[in-house]
Amino acid sequence: MDGQATCPFAPQPPPSQPLPLQIGMLLYPGLTLMDLVGPQTVLGWHGQTHLVWKSLDPVVADSGISIQPTATFAGCPDDLDVLFVPGGMGTAAVMEDAETLAFLAGRGARAGWVTSVCSGSLILAAAGLLRGYKATTHWAAYDGLAAMGMEVVRERVVVDSDRVTGDGVTAGLDFGLVLLAKLRGEQVAKVTQLSMEYDPKPPFDCGTPDAAGPELTAMARAMMRDVDAQTMRAAAAARARLDLAPA
Amino acid sequence: MDGQATCPFAPQPPPSQPLPLQIGMLLYPGLTLMDLVGPQTVLGWHGQTHLVWKSLDPVVADSGISIQPTATFAGCPDDLDVLFVPGGMGTAAVMEDAETLAFLAGRGARAGWVTSVCSGSLILAAAGLLRGYKATTHWAAYDGLAAMGMEVVRERVVVDSDRVTGDGVTAGLDFGLVLLAKLRGEQVAKVTQLSMEYDPKPPFDCGTPDAAGPELTAMARAMMRDVDAQTMRAAAAARARLDLAPA
Repeated sequence: MDGQATCPFAPQPPPSQPLPLQIGMLLYPGLTLMDLVGPQTVLGWHGQTHLVWKSLDPVVADSGISIQPTATFAGCPDDLDVLFVPGGMGTAAVMEDAETLAFLAGRGARAGWVTSVCSGSLILAAAGLLRGYKATTHWAAYDGLAAMGMEVVRERVVVDSDRVTGDGVTAGLDFGLVLLAKLRGEQVAKVTQLSMEYDPKPPFDCGTPDAAGPELTAMARAMMRDVDAQTMRAAAAARARLDLAPA
Repeated sequence: MDGQATCPFAPQPPPSQPLPLQIGMLLYPGLTLMDLVGPQTVLGWHGQTHLVWKSLDPVVADSGISIQPTATFAGCPDDLDVLFVPGGMGTAAVMEDAETLAFLAGRGARAGWVTSVCSGSLILAAAGLLRGYKATTHWAAYDGLAAMGMEVVRERVVVDSDRVTGDGVTAGLDFGLVLLAKLRGEQVAKVTQLSMEYDPKPPFDCGTPDAAGPELTAMARAMMRDVDAQTMRAAAAARARLDLAPA
């Protein structure tokens, strides 16, 4: 990993951009791998991806897949172009983990862009990195983000100054392309979209609660009940700790 | 991995489906991780995913990320509900690897569904698993699949009997939902789509060569030139070996 990616579908940065992007992506037990792989597929071709965790032992995503960190917190470059946090089942535990929050706060204070997909924005908020910024998250986590006093915007990708957040899971593709256009220009983002053949054709129109309707939404919510409860408890604790205003 | 996934967004299979799906997904050096993670995110919640390679050593994807196999060829269950092959930079090498092709041919002869995303369909074809079936692939690999005598259909997801193939990289999400609807019914697929918030909003309309136009397409093709040449050589060798009719 710690070298430039060599994907066949890799448009090279133009000569006017001599330095590969330095992209720091947080790993943690129970992350949703899709949250991370969408953005990494888009951005990774244009720089060096650091998959960062406390140790270099494999990290198990909430789908059961194990991936390998490439840097510890100490080994991650101090100055990142992009700091990225994915969401996932393990979100609540990370929102209460002082070591991880300190790492994020430190790198986030220096990073060019502070970013997330899905419930990753709740982790950014718990690290104090979204104070005063608008942000989005997975539709099932709106309440958790609002409970921390954040201003929640219900859009696919929300850009507020140097904060960029995407909504649930699959939003990482849209998020990545929006961010890449800001980092490298629209032409590079468009060639990347073409190389990934990102011409989505969802078989159903039910990707949001409004589109899916109350019955399917209730089924989805029922499956997430326990995790939602954990997240709400972690949000309340973070609000108290950070002295964030309640929603 | 070798246990049921415990993702928070995991709709459980209904009681009428007591057995988790047995999903075998090929790993190989230089696979495109996004090709695999899209389908695994959709299908993995409903079964047991086996990430299969020759050994249990970590496999490096073409983006540089290392993931952990969960089964060797010998350890993979004989009877799979789904056999899946991703594409990627390493496609040509796998098309000429007798051990991998023999594994695929054996499991493919017994699997409920024989499937791929991106240039994975060229690997299926090299294993003799697409003879007489219509299939699709990444837009840059149409010529390679046609050179093997396969009937190429330029659609997002192609279903022909028990073969299901998706086009490039990001098609894995659409592919996964189409296949899940066949395996578990439309309602389960819809709840899964909602849980993944799959309501795509690509920032540009340039996900296909037709939409992107000739200039961007030429830029993308230039980046893939070497890999395309390798793939065409492997396709010619496979055609000769399998006595497939030329296109």
